Amino acid sequence: MSRSNLLAVDAMGGDDAPAMVMAGLELAAARHPQAKFLIYGDEAVIGPMLAKTKRLKTQAVIHHSAETVTGDMKPTVALRLRDSSMRRAIDAVHGGEAAGVISAGNTGALLALSKIVLKTLPGIDRPAMAAIGPSAKGDVVMLDLGLNVVYDARNLVEFALMGEIFARVVLGLPAPSFGLLNIGSEEGKGDETLRSAAATLRDSPISGQFYGFVEGHDIAAGTVDVVVTDGFTGNVALKTGEGALKLVGELLKRVFSSGPLAKAGYLLARGGLQRLREWLDPRRYNGAVLLGLNGVVVKSHGGADAEGFAHAVDVALDMITHDFNQKIGDSLAALDKALLDPATVVPHV
Amino acid sequence: MSRSNLLAVDAMGGDDAPAMVMAGLELAAARHPQAKFLIYGDEAVIGPMLAKTKRLKTQAVIHHSAETVTGDMKPTVALRLRDSSMRRAIDAVHGGEAAGVISAGNTGALLALSKIVLKTLPGIDRPAMAAIGPSAKGDVVMLDLGLNVVYDARNLVEFALMGEIFARVVLGLPAPSFGLLNIGSEEGKGDETLRSAAATLRDSPISGQFYGFVEGHDIAAGTVDVVVTDGFTGNVALKTGEGALKLVGELLKRVFSSGPLAKAGYLLARGGLQRLREWLDPRRYNGAVLLGLNGVVVKSHGGADAEGFAHAVDVALDMITHDFNQKIGDSLAALDKALLDPATVVPHV
Repeated sequence: MSRSNLLAVDAMGGDDAPAMVMAGLELAAARHPQAKFLIYGDEAVIGPMLAKTKRLKTQAVIHHSAETVTGDMKPTVALRLRDSSMRRAIDAVHGGEAAGVISAGNTGALLALSKIVLKTLPGIDRPAMAAIGPSAKGDVVMLDLGLNVVYDARNLVEFALMGEIFARVVLGLPAPSFGLLNIGSEEGKGDETLRSAAATLRDSPISGQFYGFVEGHDIAAGTVDVVVTDGFTGNVALKTGEGALKLVGELLKRVFSSGPLAKAGYLLARGGLQRLREWLDPRRYNGAVLLGLNGVVVKSHGGADAEGFAHAVDVALDMITHDFNQKIGDSLAALDKALLDPATVVPHV
Repeated sequence: MSRSNLLAVDAMGGDDAPAMVMAGLELAAARHPQAKFLIYGDEAVIGPMLAKTKRLKTQAVIHHSAETVTGDMKPTVALRLRDSSMRRAIDAVHGGEAAGVISAGNTGALLALSKIVLKTLPGIDRPAMAAIGPSAKGDVVMLDLGLNVVYDARNLVEFALMGEIFARVVLGLPAPSFGLLNIGSEEGKGDETLRSAAATLRDSPISGQFYGFVEGHDIAAGTVDVVVTDGFTGNVALKTGEGALKLVGELLKRVFSSGPLAKAGYLLARGGLQRLREWLDPRRYNGAVLLGLNGVVVKSHGGADAEGFAHAVDVALDMITHDFNQKIGDSLAALDKALLDPATVVPHV
């Protein structure tokens, strides 16, 4: 597909946009020489920035857009702006000019616009937001992270299927394991929605990868590759984990600056401590993904720097290159066949 | 009250019970010379242990009980054991012989037995489990931690009132702040239950201490003294945060044992690192509390050691000494008066 290396970029979203976005794209262009970027934003501002780049200017085209979705704008207001950089970038995916879109702007607006313009994939009831984080056994995918406060068992099953494919595509795992987040690992734990979703997954074509219920501590332990949950729980868990890591980071900084001996100690252990910091670096995990839409949509953190934004571009290009959405369609079809066809359902004995 | 220094103890619950419990009580006896302990368990085993203690034997009486609630026993089975050490200890509170009970045994059984034997306080619909953890600004109370997967707005309001009093009594704060855990801090975030609970709290007698909605990262940041949430979210958040802290701890251990330089670095910074480890030590936060029952019920972690168990005893005695349950009754009465009497409700302007 000719459009498969084309990414639409909202240059105006994010705390330090558009300078941060342009610098991030320059990094991304060097990493992905085949990629092309359709950049949407205020040409008077980003034009000179692009001219100063080395790589990016050979891989990018600017499309001027006069309006900007601000960080505090309500989604309903953002929906009315027809010429915002965010809207135009999403329109490019809808029109087939680009295979995916990336923005560091207003999350609520990005979701609302993406849902209305791109619509959900056939068979997917609601999109979900997924992200990758660190665990003791490597990277872990978690979804949903906040889109779905109201949900049912079928939604959780769809999240599981999408998360499983996301882990295959972006983490490169051949058969990622996944679990449903609950308050205990026993079958009877949680509410009816969780138990019903678990029952469906145990009968699904990917039941061999279904670990069952996992608990909060399993996220950082890396018990499974994909942690599936509703948007409320996922959002709280993600932010709680990030908050705990930040607290320890601050306390360690205090310890190592508490006196000359501690400072010397830091210098001696610096190699390992820096590797640890890099490994836990939120920039390395930047790029939350809206799964289940007709097109790849990646949300960079609004406070990301150029390196973080470039990582989010990596994620978007990974999903585009590996035909993420096509794989979701295949997986859903297999699930529905298994659920409808009693012959393929393994009976509970 | 003569019984106000009397604590009933289930000696047989916990991974290393009863030796761990007896050792923990010996530590606790030294810290609380006025406290008396009614110890329930197998006299043939714990009798000789008590005889060997220095302090505890002068402050404790053993009551023999023939049965033990095991860690994997279903609550329905535990309910049928009339002579278990756990049941007898709870009975002692119900009968007025003790003001509170502590157990490191089966959580589900402890909850089921406590609810059936002690019953909830007048005006409290459902008990909640609360615990204390570390934050950047000092200790933070969180509840509910797993008892209430199904709940309504009134339950959340009751959790807030109980958590506020718990923070006053156990953390010694004159006017603790509290917030409702949500996926954003804006008023419109979350579901109807959360928004309704927030509206009630804004009209409550303790509205001045109500911060509003808080997010996952606010737990470790110490934004509020008390984080109020439902049992599912609270349980996941607690375990997620613990898991993240454990991950960093393991990674740091690996860093500091990675070579002679790193080991030397550890030795130089050891003072601060050990203070940090002690500060984050789960033993220092041991003792989850079942709030809202007719009697103080404290659950020690099953894997706790003697020091952790002694800390849980501190919590139980704090609650007993400060008439925790009496204060809940007063606070509920004030809330209900405020909600029923329009004259005391501050109107929204």
